[in-house]
Amino acid sequence: MKTIHFNQIRISLVGMALMFLGCNPQGSGGSDGALSSSAAEKVYIAPGEQDEYYAFLSGGYSGNLTVYGLPSGRMFKEIPVFSQFPTSGYGYSEETQPMLNTSHGFVPWDDLHHPDISQTNGELDGRWIFANGNNTPRIARISLSTFETEEIIEIPNSAGNHSSAFITENTEYVVAGTRFSVPVPQRDMPINEYKGNFKGALTFISVDPEEGHMEIAFQVIMPGFNYDLARPGRGESHGWFFFSTYNTEEANTLMEVNSSQNDKDFIAAINWKKVEEYVAQGGGESVAVNYAHNLYDESTHSATSTMIKKVVTVDPTQIPGAVYLLPTPKSPHGCDVDPSGKYIIGAGKLSADVTVHSFTKMTEAITNEDFDGEAYGIPILNFDNVLAGVVKSGGLGPLHTEFDSQGNAYTTFFISSEVVKWELGSWEVVDRKPTFYSVGHLMIPGGNSRKPYGKYLVAMNKITKDRYLPTGPEMEHSAQIYDISGEKMELLYDFPTHGEPHYAAGCSADLLRDKSKKIYRLDENNHPFAITSPAEARVERDGKEVHIYMSTIRSHFTPDNIEGIKVGDRVYFHVTNHEQDFDVPHGIAMIGANTSEILVMPGQTKTIVWEAKQVGVWPFYCTDFCSALHQEMQGYIRVSPANSNVELSWSLGD
Amino acid sequence: MKTIHFNQIRISLVGMALMFLGCNPQGSGGSDGALSSSAAEKVYIAPGEQDEYYAFLSGGYSGNLTVYGLPSGRMFKEIPVFSQFPTSGYGYSEETQPMLNTSHGFVPWDDLHHPDISQTNGELDGRWIFANGNNTPRIARISLSTFETEEIIEIPNSAGNHSSAFITENTEYVVAGTRFSVPVPQRDMPINEYKGNFKGALTFISVDPEEGHMEIAFQVIMPGFNYDLARPGRGESHGWFFFSTYNTEEANTLMEVNSSQNDKDFIAAINWKKVEEYVAQGGGESVAVNYAHNLYDESTHSATSTMIKKVVTVDPTQIPGAVYLLPTPKSPHGCDVDPSGKYIIGAGKLSADVTVHSFTKMTEAITNEDFDGEAYGIPILNFDNVLAGVVKSGGLGPLHTEFDSQGNAYTTFFISSEVVKWELGSWEVVDRKPTFYSVGHLMIPGGNSRKPYGKYLVAMNKITKDRYLPTGPEMEHSAQIYDISGEKMELLYDFPTHGEPHYAAGCSADLLRDKSKKIYRLDENNHPFAITSPAEARVERDGKEVHIYMSTIRSHFTPDNIEGIKVGDRVYFHVTNHEQDFDVPHGIAMIGANTSEILVMPGQTKTIVWEAKQVGVWPFYCTDFCSALHQEMQGYIRVSPANSNVELSWSLGD
Repeated sequence: MKTIHFNQIRISLVGMALMFLGCNPQGSGGSDGALSSSAAEKVYIAPGEQDEYYAFLSGGYSGNLTVYGLPSGRMFKEIPVFSQFPTSGYGYSEETQPMLNTSHGFVPWDDLHHPDISQTNGELDGRWIFANGNNTPRIARISLSTFETEEIIEIPNSAGNHSSAFITENTEYVVAGTRFSVPVPQRDMPINEYKGNFKGALTFISVDPEEGHMEIAFQVIMPGFNYDLARPGRGESHGWFFFSTYNTEEANTLMEVNSSQNDKDFIAAINWKKVEEYVAQGGGESVAVNYAHNLYDESTHSATSTMIKKVVTVDPTQIPGAVYLLPTPKSPHGCDVDPSGKYIIGAGKLSADVTVHSFTKMTEAITNEDFDGEAYGIPILNFDNVLAGVVKSGGLGPLHTEFDSQGNAYTTFFISSEVVKWELGSWEVVDRKPTFYSVGHLMIPGGNSRKPYGKYLVAMNKITKDRYLPTGPEMEHSAQIYDISGEKMELLYDFPTHGEPHYAAGCSADLLRDKSKKIYRLDENNHPFAITSPAEARVERDGKEVHIYMSTIRSHFTPDNIEGIKVGDRVYFHVTNHEQDFDVPHGIAMIGANTSEILVMPGQTKTIVWEAKQVGVWPFYCTDFCSALHQEMQGYIRVSPANSNVELSWSLGD
Repeated sequence: MKTIHFNQIRISLVGMALMFLGCNPQGSGGSDGALSSSAAEKVYIAPGEQDEYYAFLSGGYSGNLTVYGLPSGRMFKEIPVFSQFPTSGYGYSEETQPMLNTSHGFVPWDDLHHPDISQTNGELDGRWIFANGNNTPRIARISLSTFETEEIIEIPNSAGNHSSAFITENTEYVVAGTRFSVPVPQRDMPINEYKGNFKGALTFISVDPEEGHMEIAFQVIMPGFNYDLARPGRGESHGWFFFSTYNTEEANTLMEVNSSQNDKDFIAAINWKKVEEYVAQGGGESVAVNYAHNLYDESTHSATSTMIKKVVTVDPTQIPGAVYLLPTPKSPHGCDVDPSGKYIIGAGKLSADVTVHSFTKMTEAITNEDFDGEAYGIPILNFDNVLAGVVKSGGLGPLHTEFDSQGNAYTTFFISSEVVKWELGSWEVVDRKPTFYSVGHLMIPGGNSRKPYGKYLVAMNKITKDRYLPTGPEMEHSAQIYDISGEKMELLYDFPTHGEPHYAAGCSADLLRDKSKKIYRLDENNHPFAITSPAEARVERDGKEVHIYMSTIRSHFTPDNIEGIKVGDRVYFHVTNHEQDFDVPHGIAMIGANTSEILVMPGQTKTIVWEAKQVGVWPFYCTDFCSALHQEMQGYIRVSPANSNVELSWSLGD
């Protein structure tokens, strides 16, 4: 049954208006002599010196988080989060496979969008960074000491987990708002009965203040809109959380047209303190769900996955004073709160203007019940009476606003490809600079806190085209760094980015540099298959499973000759790296393994499995160039027929 | 049976001598004011301008190939080769899974070491780049028009495919030399009977001059040494190939000690013209093997994998004049041929000196039968009589030598952490500069050809430590770029590298820029599930398989609402991207999929599979920010119970 037919003309008009208007052939800014000289000096980090800021860029469809230095734009690490990462064995090793478990089974990928650094008193504290998996809804917590993913929690009743993973001023909660509304609970129903029946869950996940462990505190079950981005209140607005919405039309098909009909959508304001209190007093409903909670233990170097079966949902209409809707023009994408917490900025992506709501006016309107109707029982505040101001930008397609410490705001415009600087309070435009091309989000280190560092701005662009030497049809995305220390912004440099960065968080190098972990201590290694010294190396058979307790130290494996393995055996290499020096990993690869290598850091134990399929003598070797005799770091496994009586034996140096 | 015991003291002494002597706390060069100013300008590429050179760095344990620009050190692309790549769906999509098939089954990872660009008449022609998989022996060919992997061939009778993938002057052959010798054919035998029984295969793979398709021409079955690196002859030495060896001791355990006993190992010289002629005349033996040949077809956007069962092996002692051994001190690693083809340089990694063999003297010694014994029937040439000279470097641990166009050579020293410039012919050291830290290989664009570009040198360092802001125990490796246009080298810049680059190839931007493909033409798309326009979009059921013929174009999927899917169905999304503009990919992700997303380039078709496991209404969406209405590019699939009679239907805009 074929049922495709729609208004082709309508699509084309929308398309023509919105695609890549800003795509000019060449760059400007910085390419004339004098300016370029200055810009070169500003981004150059001489050998032996270090960058001023860390930038954590989401990898988007890479599933990972990337770490850059500013102002150089150099990528220092790709941290595997939601995707298998053959480089280190993440998602392949026995220890890390549980990290990617979900209610849908093992999921080797996700779309990581929005990192946010933990805070204390509204300032970055540099303990953890949180990030969302957009596709199979999940939130991850990454240590900013080890730069490894420590925890992933799945979000039930959610789909397209986009308005995530943003945190409150003391990291009380990390939020996860659904982009796509779905039946809650899931059930078999016609898609075109969406309106009024699908729901949008806004999930508040509590964070243990000591360990950082996450637990779903409650889900606010909202109307079936699309929840896009979010920001916590701060200062006077502490205790609230704000979520932008689009598709308040509740359309379910040809969304580019059908969800762009309403002149205004909403920013949803959630008083999470009131919801918290309501739930503490027994409010809400405990409903049956099924979601994974995956936890990596640095001491055992291993992850576990636990399925959880209950979650508390709350109906926002049952909690007086907890939830309101602020009308906001033109499908708002960005939803940003200034450093003082006084202003909530909605960037209507189909608009030319930026809408600024006043938190003070919002609370007055709530007190005065100054409502302009309701949506599914949730009061809609009077637009004019909560409005602080409108930035008449002169641009098109505002997406996201960040701030400096001098009372200025910076908004990216996708369609007109530019960053516009404007002043909080006067709403006057101060400066504008082009981006190359079609900027999405931007980042100022310290953003989403009370204390942004107003020195650099990074624009994350969606179109690359001619910015770099061509690499075939598929290219990296591109970022640009601007000096914003003066009144006028100065474009300094273009740098390519890995995956598709949608968002970023940044902080001063000082916040993290000294607490970065260098090695794992061997005496703290509680891995069940760890050995404390090469003298404990051994091989044990358990039926058709063979466990090799293996040691690496420059430049040999202990043992390096193993016999008595038989066809059909499942051989576990449990490799403990006995180095205790910084930056001396060893890796191990075994010919024909149906998995990746593992890269084992000093003091760590990791496991790969190899299936013995064919008789013969098969080599393994170290994959990390560890010393001048690295090439000699190898060994052999002899595989005999399944019915052989070759005795299990192992040795080194015999 | 525990049998570990060895001379601990011996190990410790070797260890102390060889580990990281060059690891100084801070850098130099470029960090004082005047010099840093100059260096900053030299590496700075202003916004809107482009780099001068492409650099292709191996990813090592990432399994991939990375593309950088020089002099900026910016990474433009990571090309998936031997590893699954969640970013684009390589190794996950139905079309690309066959690329990673091997005789051991599906192998999602390898260790990519040595890229080499195709040549015509000894000069880079920029058609393809070849690279080796070290662990499960394979060679890949990557297009330098699409920058995608087009072909992977497995190498039988091989293990640790390290002295690969180097090519001859007209890309007649790409070679693959085994690092680890193994029983040939594989069989169950005691490891300690290695000596005299294990063999080392040097494989010559012919390359079709039009299409680039690879085919194993012959394997030279050599003595059981470790074959480490290789270089083709050129100019007067055209027709020869040179392979460095170590472990001529034929040790099988504690190699760091036992394979470092001989004062000299060998460079094996193979006259491949003679072997080619021998095989053409029916020489050699056709032996039973089993290996995969995987080919990606740009027209169908799909790969196939074929298992091949025969290979021709040759015994080198049966071909008069084909194979000789050149004694070379101290476990040579690098084996390099200068641009003229006159000199073969062996870098004995446990030596202070660099050994230079003369090709002219070698041919004279062969003519004169000036032999110093033989190894397993292969003549060993008299060391003194083939020696052209010795570079008294003053360094320790030479690894690899590259050249400029002015008659100079540049050798990296791992242990003393430096690059030493010396003059061909006089063998005098001209300059030396420190590296930070422990340099492995180096690259000069145009290297391994008759015409190197002598402007920049890239050192690939093995130890990073304090060169960048710390990122926990695991860090990226680091490269350094030097200006070598003057008599003295000038260190310009440090840049981090992705994975572990072991080797690199580089060329002028002019060679590739204009022929880089921008889109795939829709009218050339022969994918069996492609559709030529959105009007052909449809859904077809075939038992429990459901095939969605889907279109993407800004900013909607056709269809975007699908009903009639049932629990237990296996749903194939065959997505054709109908865009025909450069740099407009669309991606697709489906909640709960047990695979990655796919990123679909303009004109391309790709397929992901989703298993319908739970009833409900489940969303999919576009993963690449494609337009101002990208967030609206989504759809839903309704999943009904297995016994439901909901009719299959699909729509857009209804």
